Amino acid sequence: MKHKNMKTVKVGLIGIGNVGLSLLKLYSKNRRFIEENTGCKVEFKTVCDKDESKQKLLPITTKFVTDYNIVVKDPEIDIVVELIGGIHPAYEIIMESIKHGKHIVTANKAVLSENWDKIFLTANRYNKSVYFEASVAAGIPVIQSLHEGLAGNRILGISGILNGTTNYILTLMSQYRCSYEFAVKRIRNMGIAEADITYDVSGYDTACKLSILSSLAFSSWVKLANIYIEGIEDIELQDIHFAESFGYKIKLLGNACVEGNKYYFEVRKFLVPQNNVFANIHYEDNAILLNSDHCGKVILVGKGAGGFPAASAVMADIISIAKDIVGAVSGRTHYVEYKPTKLKIVSIKDTEGCFYLRFITVDRPGVLAKIANVLGRYKVSIASVYQKEPLVKLRRGVPIILLTHKTREKSLLQALEKIKKLDVVLKPPVYIKVYS
Amino acid sequence: MKHKNMKTVKVGLIGIGNVGLSLLKLYSKNRRFIEENTGCKVEFKTVCDKDESKQKLLPITTKFVTDYNIVVKDPEIDIVVELIGGIHPAYEIIMESIKHGKHIVTANKAVLSENWDKIFLTANRYNKSVYFEASVAAGIPVIQSLHEGLAGNRILGISGILNGTTNYILTLMSQYRCSYEFAVKRIRNMGIAEADITYDVSGYDTACKLSILSSLAFSSWVKLANIYIEGIEDIELQDIHFAESFGYKIKLLGNACVEGNKYYFEVRKFLVPQNNVFANIHYEDNAILLNSDHCGKVILVGKGAGGFPAASAVMADIISIAKDIVGAVSGRTHYVEYKPTKLKIVSIKDTEGCFYLRFITVDRPGVLAKIANVLGRYKVSIASVYQKEPLVKLRRGVPIILLTHKTREKSLLQALEKIKKLDVVLKPPVYIKVYS
Repeated sequence: MKHKNMKTVKVGLIGIGNVGLSLLKLYSKNRRFIEENTGCKVEFKTVCDKDESKQKLLPITTKFVTDYNIVVKDPEIDIVVELIGGIHPAYEIIMESIKHGKHIVTANKAVLSENWDKIFLTANRYNKSVYFEASVAAGIPVIQSLHEGLAGNRILGISGILNGTTNYILTLMSQYRCSYEFAVKRIRNMGIAEADITYDVSGYDTACKLSILSSLAFSSWVKLANIYIEGIEDIELQDIHFAESFGYKIKLLGNACVEGNKYYFEVRKFLVPQNNVFANIHYEDNAILLNSDHCGKVILVGKGAGGFPAASAVMADIISIAKDIVGAVSGRTHYVEYKPTKLKIVSIKDTEGCFYLRFITVDRPGVLAKIANVLGRYKVSIASVYQKEPLVKLRRGVPIILLTHKTREKSLLQALEKIKKLDVVLKPPVYIKVYS
Repeated sequence: MKHKNMKTVKVGLIGIGNVGLSLLKLYSKNRRFIEENTGCKVEFKTVCDKDESKQKLLPITTKFVTDYNIVVKDPEIDIVVELIGGIHPAYEIIMESIKHGKHIVTANKAVLSENWDKIFLTANRYNKSVYFEASVAAGIPVIQSLHEGLAGNRILGISGILNGTTNYILTLMSQYRCSYEFAVKRIRNMGIAEADITYDVSGYDTACKLSILSSLAFSSWVKLANIYIEGIEDIELQDIHFAESFGYKIKLLGNACVEGNKYYFEVRKFLVPQNNVFANIHYEDNAILLNSDHCGKVILVGKGAGGFPAASAVMADIISIAKDIVGAVSGRTHYVEYKPTKLKIVSIKDTEGCFYLRFITVDRPGVLAKIANVLGRYKVSIASVYQKEPLVKLRRGVPIILLTHKTREKSLLQALEKIKKLDVVLKPPVYIKVYS
């Protein structure tokens, strides 16, 4: 209906990886339909990648350049889509583009979580919008749901499976009773994981996403340094096995908690009860729980990785900004208002939780008493004890598994430090928090 | 930061029921925080209810009127929030308010599903926005996710538990093995259901919500007359019992399907496999699955009913419009663009599905053969047969339960019509579709 005289919004795309290519494919497929619903044309005017060979992969005819400055400084371009990932030169591209009057769409969790203040301060100052739906959980509209859908609420907590690679590894280990190393090799062979999965398995990727969600939810930059980060590299199959035999799955969660006016943030392995939604999120799926004061718990589930799901989020952001440009409002109401407020963030050691503990000890009477004795001294109260048959016969020692009542993490760590030194304990104790 | 010279957006609220009161409470509690994030003040200038006694319930000091025309015609009011429900005078309030230059926020599924064309045609003509997040699944941001978060996608299907009352009844029946009548009485005593639950249990409420989601997703008004609607009033405990013993839960779902260029819409009881997300949605919770061409399946779960969850959605809509008003763009880009496109909608009878069938027959050899014979004649192929012990000893007859392979619904209905007339069959057969 509006096809005649439809305004054109010009996009410059920097970074032709999987998501960039998927975005161009998505747009060339759904173009007409998107234009009808957006009320304007979206033109990918210039596409940029430092690797010249990417040009032949493009599914659309467009100008291709290897120097991002051509995009950043082009006065005709309205929106710069940054899809190169990593901190540099992504940060420079975003900052320079804003200063050259561009709106930004990015999927880059690292650059946002590390530079939240500078990016939004600059965007606010230049009256430009920075949208970043694809930076967390790909196509699942969690940024929008949190920022707009729950805009009338105070957020009381955020938990989520935010990394597809680690969830895939944990799913394989649980399903095929295989080792961590075997699972990693398998997802590499399947082409699911990147060559370097350090950022995934170390918890860094999840922490970046938790930082973004928390900064948005609590109107304050929650830095990575504010987040306790633990990865899955040290996960052992026996703990998955034991946890499941007590009715839990082990998952890597990002978790933001508000208790009164205190906040804490953690990325770690959790024992999740089987009937909890997170226990049933398999493979590369992501799930996020947003707990709010008036709307209660809202849970979003979907594909947290992959070219098309991420491209779907990038396209949604482009459409949002395009609609604002057509209405001539973009930037006049800030998408994210930068506020230098300070949260009262407590150390994870000063928070409380229930824990799963595994000890490998000599097979001798009185061992449990010795361990229980130390725990008691540090006021760590035992909820249940399991002496399970080990998965494979250990060369030396037997496993003892305990679940604790609510305990201060600092006390637990002190107790474990002592227990480690007991002569009956053969290996460093393993402890995993229980999700509740 | 922007507190000085902050613009004020004026709201007129019509309808002081549970949601209306919750909205005022939510706002008075989170006011400062909302103003900070919205960049403007929201003032509930006038509040209206035909029942004068509602005035004393108001948690804020504001002008109270009993005549909605005072709100509708007030030139100072920017946004009219319609929370009275039902078709009349909600329809007149919405239409007159638009014509008087107001934007609309409504939680009213009935008025939207019955007047989609007129409302959005008028809103588009007058350049006003109509927001309706609370009309489906209360605070779960499903309208926004569908309309904006997945804006780059073609929607391939929508399924959902969209009515809290019926889901509560089905949960109670499953959990306490009680009759439909007992469950209904119980939720009435608990104050969960309204006095009149006809709209809920007949499937009408779910159908209204499916109509709204589908109209939005497929850019065409999907009328109630286009939806096959079945309720839960005829559900029997024995079918819940049998279904569970085969690994299914019975749920009332709204379901919109796209097959090529053909569409069909249905609200009905489904057998849902235990490991499907819908099987694990209990009590008044709602869940919606949005299937899209590039983002795959996104699932949203949360509280689908209640004053505060609905108020949360209404507040989010007010904030969205308020931000647009402050940016002076509201209405310049239509929130929903009315398009009189026509979908190719097929009758449910011409679609295929697997079915659960229950027959009560005489206890005599050869009965199954007779039934199977008729089914075979109509090309209904049997996947499995169960002859289960009945829950309680029947005075007369025994149950035979069948699960069919994929079959055309029309053929099944014809077969059941014949089977009903067999002398060995004592009661009208029961059939329930299997969700896949």
